[in-house]
Amino acid sequence: MVKRTSFEGDVCAVARSLDVIGDWWSLLIIRDALGGVRRFSQFQRSLGAAKNMLASRLKTLVAHGILDIEPAQDGGAHLEYAITDKGRALMPVLAALSQWGREHLFEPGETCSVILDAKTKKPIDKVRVHAKDGRELKADDVVVGRGRAR
Amino acid sequence: MVKRTSFEGDVCAVARSLDVIGDWWSLLIIRDALGGVRRFSQFQRSLGAAKNMLASRLKTLVAHGILDIEPAQDGGAHLEYAITDKGRALMPVLAALSQWGREHLFEPGETCSVILDAKTKKPIDKVRVHAKDGRELKADDVVVGRGRAR
Repeated sequence: MVKRTSFEGDVCAVARSLDVIGDWWSLLIIRDALGGVRRFSQFQRSLGAAKNMLASRLKTLVAHGILDIEPAQDGGAHLEYAITDKGRALMPVLAALSQWGREHLFEPGETCSVILDAKTKKPIDKVRVHAKDGRELKADDVVVGRGRAR
Repeated sequence: MVKRTSFEGDVCAVARSLDVIGDWWSLLIIRDALGGVRRFSQFQRSLGAAKNMLASRLKTLVAHGILDIEPAQDGGAHLEYAITDKGRALMPVLAALSQWGREHLFEPGETCSVILDAKTKKPIDKVRVHAKDGRELKADDVVVGRGRAR
């Protein structure tokens, strides 16, 4: 297994984010949690993942405040995982990733998941990047600088 | 090492995208390529990654058309890696991830990378998700459905 450097203290916000949620399984867990999955057995069925792997990823996401552990909604004895506001804030990342995949990794006409506006059941608008003055920015229109958090 | 299921044929566009670029190192390579890094040695220095690991990730990204191999810009004998349009289209994913990290993984006032509008050198606007009619959508306002690619 490739030894991973930790980017926990990196000033790059992308690197530090990947340190927390860059794991391939973790993003799929967050996807499922955003979709309402709460029970260990549901995550397992959805992801086809081994129990120990899933348990370890859930534990990490709870430790980072992306998921919360809550009592079962039906009053049962098991615990459930609820997405937090910090986890909900990842929706634009997943929406942008889903749209990129749909555009670049599927054949025309192939069945594909689509993110829909819950109210109208129509596909959401394309996730775009804008300048503060409203101009749409493409990859060549942005640079990375240094600043302060919040 | 956890055996990875391949999600290559998955209908979920997030799963299929992660199959290609979900690897932690791959996204950091794409980040660097978007920032203008082209040479193997530059990627290595930026990422602190082992040569064999970096070579294998670069090869995968070239195979998926996210990077192209090109002759050296200075006429030298080495090859360089250039980001393609397919790779450039990942900028909104990285921008959204960077903003999430800056907001949730840094202490207030801590030094942090910031994505800037190249023209004004001001931070870009927050990446937001909208419905086709312009309403801003939060995590609870979207659902995943099935559709067709393109």
